[in-house]
Amino acid sequence: MGVIIINFKAYAEGCGRNAIEIARAVLSISDRVEDYIAVAPNHLDLSEIAKIGVDVYAQHVDPINFGSHTGRVTAEMVKEKGAKGSLINHSERRLRLADIDFLIQKFKDVGLISVVCTNNVNTTKAVAVLEPDYVAVEPPELIGTGIPVSKAEPEVVENSVRAVKDLNPNVKVLCGAGITTHEDYVRALELGAEGVLLASGIVKAKDPKKALEELVGLR
Amino acid sequence: MGVIIINFKAYAEGCGRNAIEIARAVLSISDRVEDYIAVAPNHLDLSEIAKIGVDVYAQHVDPINFGSHTGRVTAEMVKEKGAKGSLINHSERRLRLADIDFLIQKFKDVGLISVVCTNNVNTTKAVAVLEPDYVAVEPPELIGTGIPVSKAEPEVVENSVRAVKDLNPNVKVLCGAGITTHEDYVRALELGAEGVLLASGIVKAKDPKKALEELVGLR
Amino acid sequence: MGVIIINFKAYAEGCGRNAIEIARAVLSISDRVEDYIAVAPNHLDLSEIAKIGVDVYAQHVDPINFGSHTGRVTAEMVKEKGAKGSLINHSERRLRLADIDFLIQKFKDVGLISVVCTNNVNTTKAVAVLEPDYVAVEPPELIGTGIPVSKAEPEVVENSVRAVKDLNPNVKVLCGAGITTHEDYVRALELGAEGVLLASGIVKAKDPKKALEELVGLR
Amino acid sequence: MGVIIINFKAYAEGCGRNAIEIARAVLSISDRVEDYIAVAPNHLDLSEIAKIGVDVYAQHVDPINFGSHTGRVTAEMVKEKGAKGSLINHSERRLRLADIDFLIQKFKDVGLISVVCTNNVNTTKAVAVLEPDYVAVEPPELIGTGIPVSKAEPEVVENSVRAVKDLNPNVKVLCGAGITTHEDYVRALELGAEGVLLASGIVKAKDPKKALEELVGLR
Repeated sequence: MGVIIINFKAYAEGCGRNAIEIARAVLSISDRVEDYIAVAPNHLDLSEIAKIGVDVYAQHVDPINFGSHTGRVTAEMVKEKGAKGSLINHSERRLRLADIDFLIQKFKDVGLISVVCTNNVNTTKAVAVLEPDYVAVEPPELIGTGIPVSKAEPEVVENSVRAVKDLNPNVKVLCGAGITTHEDYVRALELGAEGVLLASGIVKAKDPKKALEELVGLR
Repeated sequence: MGVIIINFKAYAEGCGRNAIEIARAVLSISDRVEDYIAVAPNHLDLSEIAKIGVDVYAQHVDPINFGSHTGRVTAEMVKEKGAKGSLINHSERRLRLADIDFLIQKFKDVGLISVVCTNNVNTTKAVAVLEPDYVAVEPPELIGTGIPVSKAEPEVVENSVRAVKDLNPNVKVLCGAGITTHEDYVRALELGAEGVLLASGIVKAKDPKKALEELVGLR
Repeated sequence: MGVIIINFKAYAEGCGRNAIEIARAVLSISDRVEDYIAVAPNHLDLSEIAKIGVDVYAQHVDPINFGSHTGRVTAEMVKEKGAKGSLINHSERRLRLADIDFLIQKFKDVGLISVVCTNNVNTTKAVAVLEPDYVAVEPPELIGTGIPVSKAEPEVVENSVRAVKDLNPNVKVLCGAGITTHEDYVRALELGAEGVLLASGIVKAKDPKKALEELVGLR
Repeated sequence: MGVIIINFKAYAEGCGRNAIEIARAVLSISDRVEDYIAVAPNHLDLSEIAKIGVDVYAQHVDPINFGSHTGRVTAEMVKEKGAKGSLINHSERRLRLADIDFLIQKFKDVGLISVVCTNNVNTTKAVAVLEPDYVAVEPPELIGTGIPVSKAEPEVVENSVRAVKDLNPNVKVLCGAGITTHEDYVRALELGAEGVLLASGIVKAKDPKKALEELVGLR
């Protein structure tokens, strides 16, 4: 099956105790399905959630090395806390091109999985050239809408997958924006994506555990 | 005596296990002196260090409320993890004026202590008008040099203290940049500052515990 | 009477030939009233519009000195082109506190008039401490709405004026956001403002010249 | 022969009257050689220099459409003033990946030549995928040093050229950083670059005209 990364953003419903509760739900559901499910909590929660045993990704890493950088975190710090990888260049935390390149190369050295977000087919191709582990294409106009990219703009997913595979078959493609239901998820996989990146559909659901069970087809 | 806040920045010597070791040293030294000593670790370490029992400040808080903000942390999150307050507008993480105002007001609501960094007498006065708990004046050209502001530019400290007290006697003044020795610290207090903000002098010292003992006059 | 500064923003209606046409209208109307009317075109149009004879302000100046700064302009350059001053920290071009201070001081050296935009009473006071020539308070939620700040939030204008005059009677106060009609303008002056900063009300009017005549009470 | 673009940056020696003088020198030298020589002045000088008849590029264009953007300029404005194109993403004005893509596509619509700066072979490839007119690779550590990239890191130039041509033979490659002499320039062309992007070597030369004559081999 596929890859599911749940971005907790700075949602009240996705931080502190709520974050831990969702992470525990992910852990219990992971045992019952073949999908790979991971969570991306905020930096303050990351360490504690990694200890639960669920696969954790940071939401952002600063494009710096150790040094005089107040209020910043490095790839090494994120790794040391037990993260498997990090989102890079999310549409709510866009980075400069040179910094995306810096982080992808640094993640290879440090041993972190890079999940680079992009906004269209063009930027997906540009990022694929930099050889990250994942590109996650998310048309910004659909983020948070509940209108799934896999239904509203299937050609963005298909063309992203094709373009990436042409350039470098090792780069995996996720798609995001508006994914909520099992049908959306399955459709994303049918379009060639290896999985999905989602946020509000699970984190802001009345019952996140149920929403995730529904997503993976357990309900 | 005075207030001492130790900024761990993104120093290798100030994160992970090193951060915990320095935090423990602070805790043990705090028991032996009347100074108020607190630490400002990075976001990933914050939660764990707060549990040790030392007073913890964040290095930065994003000027946002809960919501769709990937890679950001709110004042509420920092509070929930046990932080007493946060640095705001450090010279390595400068903020827009409207955002400094937003954070100071929000910290009052949430119950966090605001420590707003400034670079000269002018900006110190401007920030004092916004009524934070602390203003920490640090001439950027001296940060990390080991040349103490209290010796190199005593008039910056004196004029900052005078200007702040004229505008609002409740706002406390720290000074920073280049503070390393007990003499520098005492000099800062003599100039009217309530304390100091420092970083490399302790965190990058060969033996941070000894350096801190020296700073507070235990050696 | 009062001060009127018209911000052309990056409006299609306020650049190139349109900008020149509005500037000419300002010039002809200026002769018929006692109000001081100036325009703030984009950087590309600035030089040509200054030659027309109307008082010109830049919309922004970068907080730098001459040097290796590609894509930036200095205060000296703006002065050399004939500008009288510049907006600083407009809500669409917010600056860091240290940079606002840098620009205000630099404008004094270079001989430019500083018009610093702020978003509320607090930040207005903070800026007044830095002693600019003007503070222009504009609640961002009203910008571009046509709902005049002088009617919707008169206390913001009154409290800004009072606070500024308490701190430094030499600093002049403008108000902005939603100003369109003569009535709004007169009301702003009655509330103690020295004038107004406006944009769409004139620039995007069907007939900018008529709109300006209406504003100053010639119709 | 090759392409030479001279970036005036925010140099005192490259603005106002100095800018016009260098532009005139470029014009007179252009008549005597087969090289294509263009200048990139700051926004305030752009309009006047375009009227001289020399080919002009902006140093930067904001990634926006017409609208409420104080202190910004659009591609349409730059085109209307007579510019042939613009630098994009100079190392002193780095942009987010999505914004680089936005500008390249917009320049095609508006009819401007895109010259996208990059910092290494990786980012050069990533940009080539977006199909700009030019990629200008400049290792940031060499900018302003006088150590020519064509001598110090010839493999960066060669590998950039090869990688770009593999991806898209229509994209032209410039190289920059440290280029001063005719020998550096010729070497850049020999390495496969279509030309060079330079700044201080000409603009800050004692006699810019002589420096340019030397560069193109007239002395």
